Amino acid sequence: MTYGKVVVVGTGLIGGSIGKALIERRLAKEVIGVCRRVVSAEKAEKEGAVTSAVVNNYKESCAGADMVIIATPVDTIKDVIDRLSDCAFLPGAVVTDAGSTKKDIVEHAAKYTGKIIFVGSHPMAGSEKSGVENSRADMFEGSVCLVTPDKGTLPDSLKKVTDFWASLGAAVHKMSPEDHDHGMAFSSHLPHAAAYALAGLLEEKFPPYIFAGGFKDTTRIASSDVALWAEIFDSNRENVLEAIRKYKEKISSIERDISSSDKKNIREKLDKWRKLRDELV
Amino acid sequence: MTYGKVVVVGTGLIGGSIGKALIERRLAKEVIGVCRRVVSAEKAEKEGAVTSAVVNNYKESCAGADMVIIATPVDTIKDVIDRLSDCAFLPGAVVTDAGSTKKDIVEHAAKYTGKIIFVGSHPMAGSEKSGVENSRADMFEGSVCLVTPDKGTLPDSLKKVTDFWASLGAAVHKMSPEDHDHGMAFSSHLPHAAAYALAGLLEEKFPPYIFAGGFKDTTRIASSDVALWAEIFDSNRENVLEAIRKYKEKISSIERDISSSDKKNIREKLDKWRKLRDELV
Repeated sequence: MTYGKVVVVGTGLIGGSIGKALIERRLAKEVIGVCRRVVSAEKAEKEGAVTSAVVNNYKESCAGADMVIIATPVDTIKDVIDRLSDCAFLPGAVVTDAGSTKKDIVEHAAKYTGKIIFVGSHPMAGSEKSGVENSRADMFEGSVCLVTPDKGTLPDSLKKVTDFWASLGAAVHKMSPEDHDHGMAFSSHLPHAAAYALAGLLEEKFPPYIFAGGFKDTTRIASSDVALWAEIFDSNRENVLEAIRKYKEKISSIERDISSSDKKNIREKLDKWRKLRDELV
Repeated sequence: MTYGKVVVVGTGLIGGSIGKALIERRLAKEVIGVCRRVVSAEKAEKEGAVTSAVVNNYKESCAGADMVIIATPVDTIKDVIDRLSDCAFLPGAVVTDAGSTKKDIVEHAAKYTGKIIFVGSHPMAGSEKSGVENSRADMFEGSVCLVTPDKGTLPDSLKKVTDFWASLGAAVHKMSPEDHDHGMAFSSHLPHAAAYALAGLLEEKFPPYIFAGGFKDTTRIASSDVALWAEIFDSNRENVLEAIRKYKEKISSIERDISSSDKKNIREKLDKWRKLRDELV
């Protein structure tokens, strides 16, 4: 086994999937879930997502831990880091997280240099479903995980976090926290805003049978957890606003072409954009 | 068999699927494909999408036909109607189409009252792929087809068209051409514009590994045929412009909430929109 004790703070969809993967792949002797509520701890144990779960007990859970993963909602990660700051991990133990934004969190953790070794992570897995009941041991297989070292990150610590996600089946890529947040505003946060806005047009009241697969695919991610997304938008505000501004420019340029019936221009534009998209998949 | 001779003008993805479904379900003695080019006629025959295919020969193909379906790109449908106007169909034979917009086409066909019995259709099937090589006999099973009678449509003709699509496996709904075009601007045309615009942000150049399932789903329909979509936007210009205007308002309202860090407001808004979307699927 690679790890003795791994602590997973927050046992929802992502935390639960981390626990299940560690247990199924026999990577850790113990997987301790730290939950906020008794009912969550009971559910995590019943689901087999942890070897045992505790409620808000950081000190005892983290004593002698090899590795800690914070898998709580993005707005609570900084508080959890505060609570971890006086825990007695094993020497060299690394704390990471699974938050969708990184700069804020990495900067916050840097305050505890000497007390916590923190390297930010963003496993790009999950779905519009949430909760430990939807967690799966194979959640990270074939997925991408971004790790975001800063100038204080030691090579050993970076390697530990990289190896951790790789051991769950993810392809790991390294980015700065700043590049991460800027890129994700375009690749993930804006598409969510765009999907919610499309769904918002259902306020106009149309017969349901005129909505086919195209609409459903385009708005699938508008089924995502609303509280989570309100927090992500807020914690990456400036980048998301930049992405929205640039998106509105693209929409407006299509609007102008349609308005002036400029079929040649719109064909060339859409064709260029279609090709960029098709190169990705 | 329900039909003697069925003529399918245009044997691409939709025309080819109509032909294959008619043949597989043994609904027609003959399925004649009318193509613009020799190579398309040969491909349609080779694919088994028609019992025989001809090139631009409307008069002979349509003589004695029970049913004619125009499955050519939306900007060419009116020309095909012109060419059908002096064909000798069976008495009571109905001409329909498979275009994504309806008002223009239905109004155009009304000029030939007494010569052609035309009822507009919009089978909401297909995919971002095109061409007879992607056509399938089961394309319409479980799909929705909208039929758009106008004030001149006789009940018998409407029934013929409704029965036709139902016989291919579609659930058929009736709408006025105006309501159809207005609704489709929101349910289909705008989502395509939104997806193309999102894909357009790839001009910014990001590493490909930051794009996950959410981006790919949201932009899937940006892989659609560009020439086709340039024509659809143009032929439904006013409605599409209205939908884009209203979409930009929704995006701007999200933008304002993010900008002012109004998490409560954005949560309530996204939650309302999410619920409207989830009621659809």
